Amino acid sequence: MSRFELIAEESGGRRGRLVTGHGVIETPAFMPVGTQATVKALSPDEVQQVGAEVLLGNTYHLALRPGAERIARLGGLHRFMGWRGAILTDSGGFQVFSLDHLVKVTDDGATFRSHLDGSEQRFTPESVMEIQRQFGSDIAMAFDQPVSWPATVDGARTAMERTHRWAKRCLEPAPLDGQMRFGIVQGGFDPGLRIESAETLGRMAFDGFGVGGLSLGEPKALTYELLALQTARLPGDRPRYLMGVGTPADFIEAVARGVDMFDCVLPTRIARNGSILTRDGRLNLRNRQFIEDRRPPDESCDCYTCARFTRAYLRHLFMSGEILGHRLASIHNLRMLLRLVAQLRDAIGTGGLARLIASLREEWSLAPVP
Amino acid sequence: MSRFELIAEESGGRRGRLVTGHGVIETPAFMPVGTQATVKALSPDEVQQVGAEVLLGNTYHLALRPGAERIARLGGLHRFMGWRGAILTDSGGFQVFSLDHLVKVTDDGATFRSHLDGSEQRFTPESVMEIQRQFGSDIAMAFDQPVSWPATVDGARTAMERTHRWAKRCLEPAPLDGQMRFGIVQGGFDPGLRIESAETLGRMAFDGFGVGGLSLGEPKALTYELLALQTARLPGDRPRYLMGVGTPADFIEAVARGVDMFDCVLPTRIARNGSILTRDGRLNLRNRQFIEDRRPPDESCDCYTCARFTRAYLRHLFMSGEILGHRLASIHNLRMLLRLVAQLRDAIGTGGLARLIASLREEWSLAPVP
Repeated sequence: MSRFELIAEESGGRRGRLVTGHGVIETPAFMPVGTQATVKALSPDEVQQVGAEVLLGNTYHLALRPGAERIARLGGLHRFMGWRGAILTDSGGFQVFSLDHLVKVTDDGATFRSHLDGSEQRFTPESVMEIQRQFGSDIAMAFDQPVSWPATVDGARTAMERTHRWAKRCLEPAPLDGQMRFGIVQGGFDPGLRIESAETLGRMAFDGFGVGGLSLGEPKALTYELLALQTARLPGDRPRYLMGVGTPADFIEAVARGVDMFDCVLPTRIARNGSILTRDGRLNLRNRQFIEDRRPPDESCDCYTCARFTRAYLRHLFMSGEILGHRLASIHNLRMLLRLVAQLRDAIGTGGLARLIASLREEWSLAPVP
Repeated sequence: MSRFELIAEESGGRRGRLVTGHGVIETPAFMPVGTQATVKALSPDEVQQVGAEVLLGNTYHLALRPGAERIARLGGLHRFMGWRGAILTDSGGFQVFSLDHLVKVTDDGATFRSHLDGSEQRFTPESVMEIQRQFGSDIAMAFDQPVSWPATVDGARTAMERTHRWAKRCLEPAPLDGQMRFGIVQGGFDPGLRIESAETLGRMAFDGFGVGGLSLGEPKALTYELLALQTARLPGDRPRYLMGVGTPADFIEAVARGVDMFDCVLPTRIARNGSILTRDGRLNLRNRQFIEDRRPPDESCDCYTCARFTRAYLRHLFMSGEILGHRLASIHNLRMLLRLVAQLRDAIGTGGLARLIASLREEWSLAPVP
């Protein structure tokens, strides 16, 4: 029945396979973000070529434009955007509650104003699941209420309990054929609430679990501590997805804490400004030092950008405002993260994960985390 | 000695082959514009895939940024931008004299201010040829002085005679090995001057000829009349390049008047705003009528965009400000023009050119030109 197969466990890390209607996702898996039905600047073929098996789509953005019913009439999200791999859509909870003063929440749902035209919109657990059904997402996320840092314990409890009640309602309709549904654990920044949330959601019939509401400003050590408390209590036979947590360093630490999936907007967002990820750190290719640098952006990389172009050329593109620069840097940054995650994945079950993590922490110049 | 081979002539049209150090150009040929060492939004591979054999680079832009000496140190323009096909660079004359009040011209050359930083710059026939030598262009254009519409006959004569003197100076240094040099005929909007310019330049040892200073505001019928006067007088054994004249309609008329090469920024420029070229006219994909249109942008097209995406998706990309839209529309528009030119080329020598032109004029809804 379960479409998740756990292949190996080692030093806290897990290797597995998640079977979707649009291909198998090898986990741990990194999901590029395709907010508005496109990974910014890239064609679906390029996203496939860098090695992505699953994309994240944003329910909030797509429901507002072009609209869920429209996407359904156009054959679903995969067909609409020409993506042949798997799609996970978030529930819009994070976006809606980031709108801050513009959102009104009750137990029934959340009312907010569209950032596009100011129109009043309403999301409920039921409507969010219906929207994701219309998208035809391979993985639909339950509607949730995250709280921002620093939150009071009372505030975090209220939002968590509401998230739990919403989670139940998200499971009530019969699932769309082939669609998996993931619950989202919350609990603010309180260890006790985080444990309670993992245990409560873990008893529900979700196909997997998102860990939400982290990396919202709290210290990194706390992020990892709360994460570990929850992955230790979530059912081991279902995948865990750490939501929106997103540097290479975070991926390494999350894998070591039993996370199976991540998304991250960082690689494509920083690409727009000319920054590329390398194991020597982030390079801003706009810097004058690269003006005649004939080396590839990253000498250890096998991506299209690094195979074909120099730092000098990429610098020229950024200085000239040419969007090919954004595109080439995005290809590299995505490839870099996908390779990093593949390297971690391949080590799990070989007895070498702890050594690899130690060496990656050093390579990526990370402080070791307790 | 000549690297141009005339294969067939028919109804005013010419079919030929121009052999360069970076491949053979089948003529008539359309050259996409790569102003700043990139065809906007596209990778060099995509430009090759749509069928381009030669690109236009802009001497003015590239000399200012990143600079000709820098491009030379980085291995030349082809290597810098990763383009394996041929490159023609213009001489900067058109750009410099479009700066209008910022340019001072004497017989020695032109002094102007950079649009980037206001710095004083100077182009002479010698410096412009040296810059194009540093680029390693397959085809270098002579420095010229166009005049804008409406020009007096006196003003046009002064600029034309200067252009002729400059042309001689452009030929004085020994040519770069493998590089062809094209002169540019001018003459303003006066038939007599146009004839004189073609005859004067035609006696010089250029490898080909640009027809410059047309489509600057004058009526279309006059453009075509002046063009025909010059192509009739230019040496038949060398290619003619109609500079910067650029709608599908113009290509059809120019081929019928013995033009072998064109460039045009229109297909990529209008793509940015969501416009695509089709035989039913220009479609602006931002229009609401396309919101659920599942058809490819152009049902008769074989490009990547039309094979994989719908009008509805492209509209969504444009409405959402996603640059993938610019890219996909550019691919289509370039492919459309390259196919149109290929269709004309293939007809030359078959006895069917006049019929094809009549039918294309109708398809593209053009008024017949006398």
